[in-house]
Amino acid sequence: MKEKRIDKINNDIVILAMDRAKRPMDKINSIEESEIHDMYDKNCPFCRGNEKYTPEDTFKIESSTGWIVRSTKNKFPIVDESAEDICGNHEVLIDTYRHNGNFYNMNQIEYENMLIMYIDRYREFIEDENTEYVSIFKNFMRKAGASLSHPHSQIISLPLIPPDLENELEIGKKYYLENNRCLYMDLIKEEIENKDRVIHNGENFLVIVPYATRYSGEVRILFKKKIRFESINDECIKELAFILDKLFDKLEMKRGISPFNLYIHNYPKNIDSMEYFNVHIHIIPRQFNFGGFELSTGMYVTSLSPEEFAKSLRF
Amino acid sequence: MKEKRIDKINNDIVILAMDRAKRPMDKINSIEESEIHDMYDKNCPFCRGNEKYTPEDTFKIESSTGWIVRSTKNKFPIVDESAEDICGNHEVLIDTYRHNGNFYNMNQIEYENMLIMYIDRYREFIEDENTEYVSIFKNFMRKAGASLSHPHSQIISLPLIPPDLENELEIGKKYYLENNRCLYMDLIKEEIENKDRVIHNGENFLVIVPYATRYSGEVRILFKKKIRFESINDECIKELAFILDKLFDKLEMKRGISPFNLYIHNYPKNIDSMEYFNVHIHIIPRQFNFGGFELSTGMYVTSLSPEEFAKSLRF
Repeated sequence: MKEKRIDKINNDIVILAMDRAKRPMDKINSIEESEIHDMYDKNCPFCRGNEKYTPEDTFKIESSTGWIVRSTKNKFPIVDESAEDICGNHEVLIDTYRHNGNFYNMNQIEYENMLIMYIDRYREFIEDENTEYVSIFKNFMRKAGASLSHPHSQIISLPLIPPDLENELEIGKKYYLENNRCLYMDLIKEEIENKDRVIHNGENFLVIVPYATRYSGEVRILFKKKIRFESINDECIKELAFILDKLFDKLEMKRGISPFNLYIHNYPKNIDSMEYFNVHIHIIPRQFNFGGFELSTGMYVTSLSPEEFAKSLRF
Repeated sequence: MKEKRIDKINNDIVILAMDRAKRPMDKINSIEESEIHDMYDKNCPFCRGNEKYTPEDTFKIESSTGWIVRSTKNKFPIVDESAEDICGNHEVLIDTYRHNGNFYNMNQIEYENMLIMYIDRYREFIEDENTEYVSIFKNFMRKAGASLSHPHSQIISLPLIPPDLENELEIGKKYYLENNRCLYMDLIKEEIENKDRVIHNGENFLVIVPYATRYSGEVRILFKKKIRFESINDECIKELAFILDKLFDKLEMKRGISPFNLYIHNYPKNIDSMEYFNVHIHIIPRQFNFGGFELSTGMYVTSLSPEEFAKSLRF
């Protein structure tokens, strides 16, 4: 049985083809990146004590033993102030001083500190007069695009609204104009009523497996209230830290220490989209690779049941 | 230095950031798939002599020693006749009977036979009354989405025009309406005049590295004449086989036996787009993975100079 599903927030077309999970696969010799055991690596530019390898701090939180989280300019930026048509800033946000830290073993306090850093940098980045959008994202493991293994996130300011955001905003606006209601608030209501794809229903955040997504195994965290990411209060930060802590414990149980990307889709700076858009976080597993079908068509095939996947992660 | 470039055929935004090639990378233990040495594998469903593991032939070319190329229904289809909203056909096209064959070691005659099979299957697939578009694509190696290593391509019919094709068609149509000329014919003229990104300028095909592409290291084969893929004559087939043979020799010299996808963007069935669209083939290397920046924004970063890459592949 095949089923065509549409991802409502971006109109992606997804084909559910459950029986393809049974495909035979050649054996392949491939050793995954192994878990890191040491808290400190003398060659790592992001380790405590090795600050000389990176530019100055732009933010840090310190404890009696040294800094806990720290941000610094990216030495190999995607954008910088040199380019006329794509100027911006790019910083590295070191999630934790622990070289062997990762989203699977960080605790709630570590997540809180990381989120405080995210918000501080976001608030500064958004102030730049050329900035139209600020993107926060994270790559974990080489398969997800990380070049260094010390746990870190990244923040980039852009002089334009990126195409994927523009698409989500357009779809949200169209829905609002047609229905006089917010697509995201409707989705939140529907998913809570339906229950099947809910992982966790918190005070401020709804964690779901999307009904359809181009990325098999994606988890989305939807902000239930109309608030910009960088405006959330301490209570929200605590709740989001709790959610990340619990969610990655569940994800580790399900698929081990595995590569992923995380990114925040926030409101743009200069377009008032409060009525038709809500902040949300995409968490994308990267064990699997797209094939030529996806690349050639822009349609996506999955053999994972969103409902069963959500059940296995619920907390 | 950073430069923003637009891929004219699909409006993708690409950031050229050459200095990012110098980024330090952690060492990672990862063994690539090794080259296959045997011409026959007793466990491979696509090997000559193992036809019992697959459904009946839908096409084959035979020599005195047995079949050379052969197509058969895909046992684990992405689409089939069962689904109401996404019905279609899906076949596997076995590029060569040789288990150890691949695009890097196939010769011109082997390519010709493969292309004859592509065209035969295309002509049958396009006849189905529900079909709006037929996609031919190829995955080589697991990183490119291949589940079996015996060299094969795939053909799928779809009851809709896939989003990526629709996008290319829309852009071509808009350009035509604004300029009263074909975007593809203009591109071909410009690239030939400019020379820098031309790999090979043949009678019927122009092989280039695109000025901008979301996929670092992509090569495109543009059809210079207004003709559907399945209508090309023997002379064109011979020329295309010659090009694939030469091109993959060059690609092997440059990056070894490495994963890639290939796909053909042909005219849709029921929309007359002859005036504003030309058939083209995308060849996408898959050594590299997108990171969170690409996933979160829909913008693409490259540190590869298209001009230098083209120079290294020229024939």
